[in-house]
Amino acid sequence: MSLAGSMLQSSPTQPHINKAALEACITACFDCTQTCTSCADACLAEQQREMLLRCIRLDLDCADICDTTGKLLSRQVAFDSTLARVMLQTCALACRICGAECEQHGRRGMEHCRICAEACRRCEEACNQLLAVLVV
Amino acid sequence: MSLAGSMLQSSPTQPHINKAALEACITACFDCTQTCTSCADACLAEQQREMLLRCIRLDLDCADICDTTGKLLSRQVAFDSTLARVMLQTCALACRICGAECEQHGRRGMEHCRICAEACRRCEEACNQLLAVLVV
Amino acid sequence: MSLAGSMLQSSPTQPHINKAALEACITACFDCTQTCTSCADACLAEQQREMLLRCIRLDLDCADICDTTGKLLSRQVAFDSTLARVMLQTCALACRICGAECEQHGRRGMEHCRICAEACRRCEEACNQLLAVLVV
Amino acid sequence: MSLAGSMLQSSPTQPHINKAALEACITACFDCTQTCTSCADACLAEQQREMLLRCIRLDLDCADICDTTGKLLSRQVAFDSTLARVMLQTCALACRICGAECEQHGRRGMEHCRICAEACRRCEEACNQLLAVLVV
Repeated sequence: MSLAGSMLQSSPTQPHINKAALEACITACFDCTQTCTSCADACLAEQQREMLLRCIRLDLDCADICDTTGKLLSRQVAFDSTLARVMLQTCALACRICGAECEQHGRRGMEHCRICAEACRRCEEACNQLLAVLVV
Repeated sequence: MSLAGSMLQSSPTQPHINKAALEACITACFDCTQTCTSCADACLAEQQREMLLRCIRLDLDCADICDTTGKLLSRQVAFDSTLARVMLQTCALACRICGAECEQHGRRGMEHCRICAEACRRCEEACNQLLAVLVV
Repeated sequence: MSLAGSMLQSSPTQPHINKAALEACITACFDCTQTCTSCADACLAEQQREMLLRCIRLDLDCADICDTTGKLLSRQVAFDSTLARVMLQTCALACRICGAECEQHGRRGMEHCRICAEACRRCEEACNQLLAVLVV
Repeated sequence: MSLAGSMLQSSPTQPHINKAALEACITACFDCTQTCTSCADACLAEQQREMLLRCIRLDLDCADICDTTGKLLSRQVAFDSTLARVMLQTCALACRICGAECEQHGRRGMEHCRICAEACRRCEEACNQLLAVLVV
């Protein structure tokens, strides 16, 4: 079990939603925060920076949004499903837009963009899977 | 002019949207981040903490969401209106829910909740006013 | 009085340190978070980006550090002076290094760097003034 | 290899310091951000909240500090060893203070505090190991 999973297990407030989907989403959000922060920095160091401007910007936004989503989902006290739902939708969108941008550069050989695109895809999927089981 | 306004003015990337609405929204987001962080802490110190659990939790979420929104709006390079729109909607919702909770406690004499409710209302309004002029 | 000041005033936990210095430092930290976030973005859009790489990087670090310092100082419950002290020292250093870098570019006509350098200087001073009255 | 490790590997800017120690520290910082955020929430839900006030507060500080440290270390462009050093020292201290508090409650049977104390210890060690190889 992941650290996030052990923390959910040991909280006095048990989530009303599927714990496995919640755990996976929290982990994917923090992974994506790290990857997007790294990718913005790696893009900044590339020669073709002009071409990577949009990627850097989306990486910075996506890192902030995933960070906030990971923290919101880590809180179980007085969980507000309506707020969680819109935050998850925003996070899925950020990951979709950022992942698509990274994927293009990944295909042209930028390995950091390829890895980041994968992390964005996994986070987008994890958000969508949690949305599917989230009862509002 | 606010600091956020001067920074917008001096950026090589001029926003396509109303600069006054953007400036007001950035300032309101960072104000609300501070106020919600303080309010969570003040609620934690109150005697009636049981009653304030939901307020503390929403304060923490709202602080994170306003922080992320303020940063996203501070970036003008490759501005993505679709992502900005959903983030602003999420922020307006967080401020509405958190502001409503704080307002209740403010009416019962908790001054920190009353001030925080006002900051949430201002931020919600600033988000909605920016949404009204944001062309996607 | 600033919002941060009103929140301090209304908290059940009254700070043991000079409230005016604390209020000024919280406000300076959040101002600097915004300014550094904007400055990183403006630098990214400049033609001479190669020359601005260090500025962008320091802006991103300084934004994160000021944000964290502003939040830590906003919390009065079980205030740990030792931790506050090292965080303030770290924040003052980040602002000094980032401010010095920005100042150079400001002198060459980059207005966003000039404004950001000022915000960094104000935040560095506010941290140092709070450190001077912080009893460990 | 961890995601953070793959990102370091693929960045155009290769770190001058031990990559394994850097990777381990980045991962430990983001793990600790998640664990401390969860622990603050779990403590909030416990009956003995009065006893846990200091733990909640330190969890919130430690989460912010680890988050900022993980992001700073994820950036390799124009890496400033002096700033990295003080940030790592601050993070090690935050983890030590927060970990010690959590450990006490963990010994009294609070499983979330026990897990969080372990994450804090691992992060403190990872910071100290990176400090040991960081040349200023």
